[in-house]
Amino acid sequence: MNSGSGVEILDPEAVFRVVDLAGVLANGVLGGAVARQLRMDPVGFVVLALTSALGGGVLRDTLLQAGTPVALTDPAYLFAAIAGAFIAYLIELKGKWANRFLIVIDSFALGCWAATGTSKALGFGLEWLPAILIGVATAVGGGMIRDIAVGRVPAIFGGNTLYATGALIAAIEMAVLYHLGLRNVGMAVAIVSAAVICTVARRRGWRLPGP
Amino acid sequence: MNSGSGVEILDPEAVFRVVDLAGVLANGVLGGAVARQLRMDPVGFVVLALTSALGGGVLRDTLLQAGTPVALTDPAYLFAAIAGAFIAYLIELKGKWANRFLIVIDSFALGCWAATGTSKALGFGLEWLPAILIGVATAVGGGMIRDIAVGRVPAIFGGNTLYATGALIAAIEMAVLYHLGLRNVGMAVAIVSAAVICTVARRRGWRLPGP
Amino acid sequence: MNSGSGVEILDPEAVFRVVDLAGVLANGVLGGAVARQLRMDPVGFVVLALTSALGGGVLRDTLLQAGTPVALTDPAYLFAAIAGAFIAYLIELKGKWANRFLIVIDSFALGCWAATGTSKALGFGLEWLPAILIGVATAVGGGMIRDIAVGRVPAIFGGNTLYATGALIAAIEMAVLYHLGLRNVGMAVAIVSAAVICTVARRRGWRLPGP
Repeated sequence: MNSGSGVEILDPEAVFRVVDLAGVLANGVLGGAVARQLRMDPVGFVVLALTSALGGGVLRDTLLQAGTPVALTDPAYLFAAIAGAFIAYLIELKGKWANRFLIVIDSFALGCWAATGTSKALGFGLEWLPAILIGVATAVGGGMIRDIAVGRVPAIFGGNTLYATGALIAAIEMAVLYHLGLRNVGMAVAIVSAAVICTVARRRGWRLPGP
Repeated sequence: MNSGSGVEILDPEAVFRVVDLAGVLANGVLGGAVARQLRMDPVGFVVLALTSALGGGVLRDTLLQAGTPVALTDPAYLFAAIAGAFIAYLIELKGKWANRFLIVIDSFALGCWAATGTSKALGFGLEWLPAILIGVATAVGGGMIRDIAVGRVPAIFGGNTLYATGALIAAIEMAVLYHLGLRNVGMAVAIVSAAVICTVARRRGWRLPGP
Repeated sequence: MNSGSGVEILDPEAVFRVVDLAGVLANGVLGGAVARQLRMDPVGFVVLALTSALGGGVLRDTLLQAGTPVALTDPAYLFAAIAGAFIAYLIELKGKWANRFLIVIDSFALGCWAATGTSKALGFGLEWLPAILIGVATAVGGGMIRDIAVGRVPAIFGGNTLYATGALIAAIEMAVLYHLGLRNVGMAVAIVSAAVICTVARRRGWRLPGP
């Protein structure tokens, strides 16, 4: 990806990869934490970690019918998600800071996944609206499927602070910048803005209005 | 689809398209109504509208592996489903007539979707039994997935009046008429008979017998 | 598969096919039994039978994007699953022996499905870890989806005796023997060992440790 330059400090692809995999790991831990709350055994930890961490990407690749999901073909994803399950199994993350740390990583990953999903869908020739939808589904789908799997109404359906909204804005930004030929800028903008939106919304308790 | 005839009054394809999209809109509203019952925010409205309205078709296209689902490639579907979410968000449909109107449109769409699903599956070379099953899944899948997503046992599993049965009969009719080379007749017969079955069953309280 | 030998007593492929279809039938009955518990109508019986019996294979084929799932293209599967629904609808299987019989068949099918899934995934060029995961998902996916569809937390997530663990061991054995070119041996070993693990675990109450 980057050859010939000896003083490259920040390769964008490498940065996005780090954000992506850190998000997978963090969501693996968050999925495992749900398994711990519900007193599951290691099978539950692994299934919920995989669902939380990789469900969105699998949903995206299944809907696009883009071949076997990258979650299955790129071994790093499975390892990161399962590592998250192990961490959650071994350590009870009850400190305020541990939780806050996971949530910050998750909010960075949110924009990263929204942007990746949107860009992949546009690359498959989808129109703006479905591509943005795929982006949002990539970002929030894992948590949604995990919640359904344990019999909870998904948090994104209501009652939580802005989260899917952050993914939506990230996906729209990516769609615009993709069409301007600025995919790396789109990724960066999406990651930062989703993280800012989620973090500020969480602090201030911003919610979408009910009907 | 139809050129050269200046006095064409009723193009079958156009009629089916209207039934199809009216069904998507009506199911979008019905999905949104569930979100309203459960006091969700706009994200919940949109997700449940999309699920109710397009879940069956997405299930069909994912199972058939027929390429990216038409729900994503034909923009009219997404617009109609999201329009349904908006309507349900803005207006509380509590009048008897509003509800009855939605249910009538839904019962026309039921046969339309059962027939489309069966015909698409037969076109992919499936045998009768799996094709009919795909037809029924297309027709009832959206509501089923929506119910599961909000933690309810799907209504079609029991306790409601004939609904999946209407879809089953429509699918069987389509399978027969498809093999006779009468696809448009199959669509028309399926739409009318599913609507009649559902409406009469609802009036008279017809249910399938329990075990 | 086997020509020229006049005294072939036990064709491995035929044996695996019997185990496979017996498993589909048994899981169809087990799915129908859940529908009976929840007092569903015949639609519920059929949907839960199909889900229990074929959900794992459909999950595998959807994830691998291996074309229309074999559950839909090989008519024997649908017939066996629906036959299971009929049996559960007609007969209340409450005797200790009836239940024990179904569970024994199910535990043979568990290893069979884990091995088939793993071997199919390896054949698609997946790495070890994702292939084993696909194998386990094939084996336990149907029961998991059925439990989610009726609003239960899947039994495999915790609280039951070793089951997914049996599938995991079967999948690993198959992966090893597949790479040694011994697919039929892999199938046989997987079937026997999963059945032994499940049966012994059930007798002795072996469970995985909680966190």
